[in-house]
Amino acid sequence: MFTIAGTVERKLWSEKFMEWFHKVLREAEIYEMRYPVKGCYIWMPYGMKLRNNIISLIKKLLDETGHQEVLFPTFIPEEFIRKESEHIAKFEDEIFWVVKGGKRELETRLALRPTSETAIMPIFKLWIRAHTDLPLKIYQVVSIFRCETKATHPMIRVREVTTFKEAHTAHATFEEAAKQVEEAISIYRKFFDTLAIPYVISRRPEWDKFPGAVYTIAFDTVLPDGKVLQIGTAHNLGQNFSRAFEVTYLRPDGKHEYVYTTSYGISERVVAAVIAIHGDDRGLVLPPTVAPIQVVIVPIYYKGQEEYVISHCRKVAEYLRSRGFTVALDDRTDKTPGWKFYYWEMRGIPLRLEVGPRDIENKVVTVVRRDTLERRTIAQDMLDVELRKLLNEVYENLKQRAWSWFNEHYHTASNIEEASEKMKLGGIVEVPWCGSEECGLAIEDTLNARVLGEPVDEYRKLRGKLKCINCGKESDKVLRIAKTY
Amino acid sequence: MFTIAGTVERKLWSEKFMEWFHKVLREAEIYEMRYPVKGCYIWMPYGMKLRNNIISLIKKLLDETGHQEVLFPTFIPEEFIRKESEHIAKFEDEIFWVVKGGKRELETRLALRPTSETAIMPIFKLWIRAHTDLPLKIYQVVSIFRCETKATHPMIRVREVTTFKEAHTAHATFEEAAKQVEEAISIYRKFFDTLAIPYVISRRPEWDKFPGAVYTIAFDTVLPDGKVLQIGTAHNLGQNFSRAFEVTYLRPDGKHEYVYTTSYGISERVVAAVIAIHGDDRGLVLPPTVAPIQVVIVPIYYKGQEEYVISHCRKVAEYLRSRGFTVALDDRTDKTPGWKFYYWEMRGIPLRLEVGPRDIENKVVTVVRRDTLERRTIAQDMLDVELRKLLNEVYENLKQRAWSWFNEHYHTASNIEEASEKMKLGGIVEVPWCGSEECGLAIEDTLNARVLGEPVDEYRKLRGKLKCINCGKESDKVLRIAKTY
Repeated sequence: MFTIAGTVERKLWSEKFMEWFHKVLREAEIYEMRYPVKGCYIWMPYGMKLRNNIISLIKKLLDETGHQEVLFPTFIPEEFIRKESEHIAKFEDEIFWVVKGGKRELETRLALRPTSETAIMPIFKLWIRAHTDLPLKIYQVVSIFRCETKATHPMIRVREVTTFKEAHTAHATFEEAAKQVEEAISIYRKFFDTLAIPYVISRRPEWDKFPGAVYTIAFDTVLPDGKVLQIGTAHNLGQNFSRAFEVTYLRPDGKHEYVYTTSYGISERVVAAVIAIHGDDRGLVLPPTVAPIQVVIVPIYYKGQEEYVISHCRKVAEYLRSRGFTVALDDRTDKTPGWKFYYWEMRGIPLRLEVGPRDIENKVVTVVRRDTLERRTIAQDMLDVELRKLLNEVYENLKQRAWSWFNEHYHTASNIEEASEKMKLGGIVEVPWCGSEECGLAIEDTLNARVLGEPVDEYRKLRGKLKCINCGKESDKVLRIAKTY
Repeated sequence: MFTIAGTVERKLWSEKFMEWFHKVLREAEIYEMRYPVKGCYIWMPYGMKLRNNIISLIKKLLDETGHQEVLFPTFIPEEFIRKESEHIAKFEDEIFWVVKGGKRELETRLALRPTSETAIMPIFKLWIRAHTDLPLKIYQVVSIFRCETKATHPMIRVREVTTFKEAHTAHATFEEAAKQVEEAISIYRKFFDTLAIPYVISRRPEWDKFPGAVYTIAFDTVLPDGKVLQIGTAHNLGQNFSRAFEVTYLRPDGKHEYVYTTSYGISERVVAAVIAIHGDDRGLVLPPTVAPIQVVIVPIYYKGQEEYVISHCRKVAEYLRSRGFTVALDDRTDKTPGWKFYYWEMRGIPLRLEVGPRDIENKVVTVVRRDTLERRTIAQDMLDVELRKLLNEVYENLKQRAWSWFNEHYHTASNIEEASEKMKLGGIVEVPWCGSEECGLAIEDTLNARVLGEPVDEYRKLRGKLKCINCGKESDKVLRIAKTY
């Protein structure tokens, strides 16, 4: 037995996504965007809690798979950052340089890390002696700095990435490094699944891989405006960095060999994706798996009943906390219930309990789901079981809704004209491709879009013998293309 | 019934403290000191766990008292950092400046925050409108950067402070700000008590307060070499920063007034103090309250019994984990028990369980305390209760030992000659003082030491009418002086 408490509108969300996004970051008190340095923002208390829950989740997955947390310095000496030539060539334009300490010029210019491979490799050289030291798997959660030349966007393209989780590993063979990339992929799958974020996994083309990598695997999702957001990458670095930094190990057969390394990372873009993908015109809709508050209780009363109702609500809150729920009780007496509904809906709390004198009398509570705005009455003594079930239903519904929206924005096309039409719908277009860099670049150029790469997941749609949409050559390869952030 | 498994030596610890400290940081795998940028170091996995536990503890204390976690940018525009004149005058020489992004000069020089008052105040200006917005209490845990001109020391004087917990608050009146400083002091007391770190609390002299503060209260402890380490500070900033940044609020009477602010911080020096104060010649000795592992199990067997003994140990580990202990089982088969004892003693695990075939037969385990090396047999079915009791005893013993060592290094003196003699013993000397800056500076100069300030705790020893050790004037004031880091 349930009724609908309102309509789930997604008009602003879909038609003016950036306006919606900024409004929600501001009104839900996630992010302060008025800091006067370009591309630098402030995590506000509620946003910080959401961010911390998401970090805890990825840390747990990494800890469980034998990764060890460390913390490396922010400064990288110029000499180090220049050692791997492809790496510096790509990052050269984006590095913030520290050249002065106080009034004195520094002896050596210090880069603010744009990523930490070149800080970590000289230390791997000290830590790794023999095959018994391998594999070595570490990670850190840090700020990295990139002087982005493109337009900055809050949380999506920033100059101080405040939430960079980067893992770095070293192995005895190329195959073990490749297997490590597989492990990274499986960790990220679990991570995004828990966040109910849809994704495809692609092998980036040669011309768009991480600078210094043998190959790069990337996770991409689609935001409400149809543009694609890269939300995670994993790189097999082969021996490129170990050669540059001379990191060798002693093999069981007594020979020395360069180690094979990998790195993989995610950033606050994941938080942006959680916010963007699940929201609606009323604001945030958070998956119960990472919501800072799962259940908010709003007391409903007429004048004179305050203490009676609020003290009952306190007991309900206490009980739910003892059962492991995270609960907020909104006992502000200077705000109306309607004001509070708006307030907590904007913040995306998965379940709202409304408790009035009639409910107390009938030994029930009224519960409203944030995702569907469905309203239902639950017997007090079934609260624990029913809320647990409901939280699970919210999660499943968000996941299903996000994936079906994603599916609608994943297209295929068999020629350039069709691809061009499909591009207009927003999202990702999968097209046949001969495999040549020349055709890949031509496709990017013609469609004014970006190549995401070849599918390495089960999501690929086109099968069998196909014809490259640029040169017409027969091939079984496909490419994913999209407008990207 | 117990025996002693060894002698608790503190020879290297007390006679060559810095050598001991470096050895422990290295051998216990706390800290990598070979990073090639002066004053920058790496937290290794075990050190990181200890650091994280200590951070969790202070975060919990702050969360419980209504502080909200946030995250502000690393960059502070030059214009902001120059707004409060005392502040910039002091930090001018220590600021790392970013002047280039890629190959382009930046439009405005960016300071890497040496502390965040000047990043936060412009935002407080946006967040604070009326008295209903006060008090505002936030904190963050971040890296700060200071181009120290003094000699750097691992974890004690660093150029990237990686573990700066800074709280910032705003209030309606000076009294409320003063009360907030009291709250900070009470939080830090709990914090250091939980870490079993002894301290005195002093009001820093005018000439050594935080730049921009009305007054500064500081926590100091004494390291094994007799030098004093500042481990926490709390500042009442009055209206100094709010005037510079024009942060006002609307009072209930309709008038606008500048807010009153405070800030208080701790850093990785706290981790250094935990390591330094509780250690002995065998390495770390960690308080069970923050030890990453509370109990380590070492199986003892002859060849052929491995599986029997290890599988029993696994059950013990599982049982203890289910009871809430953090447990490591050292089941390495290529290491001897003696090697393992050394390994885990170096890492300071509070309790070691030794389990051999005879113990299994007798349904007992052998437990060795890290702090006293006392060895004892415990019946299996009493394990939970007894280990809990023992962990508590270890904590109490560490606290008692640390405080009694501290007490022995807290001296009083009634004239310059006596003060000079007492200074040679190491630690803190409390002396009568007339209260004038002139005499304070003269005392520093004569004794070649630093003034810690006036006691604001109950630890003060000298009472009644006293004579300033510099000018002889009668006074009831005293000063604490010491050699400091």
